Amino acid sequence: MLSKERFNEIMQAESNLVGCELESLMALEGEKRQHVLTEAMAYSLLAGGKRIRPILTRAFCRACGGDDGLAMPFACALEMIHNFSLIHDDLPCMDDDELRRGRPTNHVVFGEDIAVLAGDGLLNMAFETALKNARTPAHITVEALKILAECTGVYGMLGGQVIDLQSEGKSVDMDTLLTMHRLKTGALIRAAALMGCTVAGASAQQICGAEAYAKGIGLTFQIIDDILDVTSSTEELGKPVGSDAENQKTTFVTLLGVEEARRQAQMHTEAAVEALQAFGGDEFLETLAYSLLNRKK
Amino acid sequence: MLSKERFNEIMQAESNLVGCELESLMALEGEKRQHVLTEAMAYSLLAGGKRIRPILTRAFCRACGGDDGLAMPFACALEMIHNFSLIHDDLPCMDDDELRRGRPTNHVVFGEDIAVLAGDGLLNMAFETALKNARTPAHITVEALKILAECTGVYGMLGGQVIDLQSEGKSVDMDTLLTMHRLKTGALIRAAALMGCTVAGASAQQICGAEAYAKGIGLTFQIIDDILDVTSSTEELGKPVGSDAENQKTTFVTLLGVEEARRQAQMHTEAAVEALQAFGGDEFLETLAYSLLNRKK
Repeated sequence: MLSKERFNEIMQAESNLVGCELESLMALEGEKRQHVLTEAMAYSLLAGGKRIRPILTRAFCRACGGDDGLAMPFACALEMIHNFSLIHDDLPCMDDDELRRGRPTNHVVFGEDIAVLAGDGLLNMAFETALKNARTPAHITVEALKILAECTGVYGMLGGQVIDLQSEGKSVDMDTLLTMHRLKTGALIRAAALMGCTVAGASAQQICGAEAYAKGIGLTFQIIDDILDVTSSTEELGKPVGSDAENQKTTFVTLLGVEEARRQAQMHTEAAVEALQAFGGDEFLETLAYSLLNRKK
Repeated sequence: MLSKERFNEIMQAESNLVGCELESLMALEGEKRQHVLTEAMAYSLLAGGKRIRPILTRAFCRACGGDDGLAMPFACALEMIHNFSLIHDDLPCMDDDELRRGRPTNHVVFGEDIAVLAGDGLLNMAFETALKNARTPAHITVEALKILAECTGVYGMLGGQVIDLQSEGKSVDMDTLLTMHRLKTGALIRAAALMGCTVAGASAQQICGAEAYAKGIGLTFQIIDDILDVTSSTEELGKPVGSDAENQKTTFVTLLGVEEARRQAQMHTEAAVEALQAFGGDEFLETLAYSLLNRKK
């Protein structure tokens, strides 16, 4: 385990590095007429956020002995996919959220039409930026982007969003809840870990370890999200709390209660850390797992 | 020039081939829970349509002496991008259209939330399907998908849609109109031609020819669209006519009048056919250009 100070230092440095790279990718030139579209894309993409997915991609690349600079184009692509999904998720016809990271959501600022196109733009740009900036051999680029597309699609994040929409106002069972989260939030975390491994030319054993780690922290992340929605405040989180109860959503808390949910999150975190044995252990990824378990926002 | 019968025969055969391939790509297995998403994606993608873009990709591949089977994954990807854009374009917050190809639009059938996700799903699946099914060398796959992403993005189709949205209810000048169409409809036609060339390993001269052909038929296509909107009927077109006037849109017809618009379309078609010299001429592509000029729907 890293000390809290050392861990925060690395997280800050990594987050800055990813943020700078995203800023330079978004500094698009040319036609002024489309300016509002790039502005809307940048508004969400450059709003901060924890950058956990790109940081994971880079960390898994290092854990496999790879050059994390080679992982950067895929790390950035993943962050674009994540932000596209947030913009569309917040739309009035979806979750209808007006606040995200303490700021008005994309459609509140730019209008629904531009927000739809800004999400589309980020999804497309994820592939464009990775294809254009990758310095990996072409067959590695293709493999990494297969992972990205698969984890984003019908049997990944988008599929999870559909299950989420269809579960609204209904009580669902644990199996459905687990499937939904495995896809909706878990799939991109899985993509993060696996793309990092792919860039570094990981062994089969390492890929299994990365899958298990991603599964463990993905579930932890979601369980803690559900817990914070009932125990935190809007100021602390930067987004409204109590929205799950308001939308009559089934969550890990409604199914298990806060205490049991927290116990299971602890268990998933330990499984994630255990899986790091495939890499001979990794202090940063170990500390990251515990930080997600113990996060307050 | 091919005879009308021979041309229609090839178009029908090509359209069937593409349609069959798209059907097999959409026959997704696994989780039942996301079924509504794949159903919504298939509803639009498999609704017919002229399949002009994928047919162009395959035809340019053949014109450069390539194997059009190798172009198929990129041809299908392009058709997915085209259909994603139609679904989002029809949304209430965009053009708010309720009829497309003689059937209710996606959001009318599946609801706005699923329609947004179905569009997202097709955009993502375009890349996924090409990455997974390409039998081209990896560096060719990467090159072809760079073209696809670039022509779809901010400086391609999506950028054109933004200019379109911002021009609504305003009168715009010819320069803006040309830029909008070069991007909104022209970019994907350009992608179609260039991806076919890339798969076949075309010469620089052939690529220039493909660009010029795409530009010529793209403008022709749009000018004829504008003309049909004032001269055709809803029954004939399968979509409402007179919508441009209703939305006070500037079109080639409002700027030039029907006669001059038709004359310019003729001119663009001739430029497109001229550009086929780079391929030693191509009867199918020549006939296709004239058929777009003379189309009644």
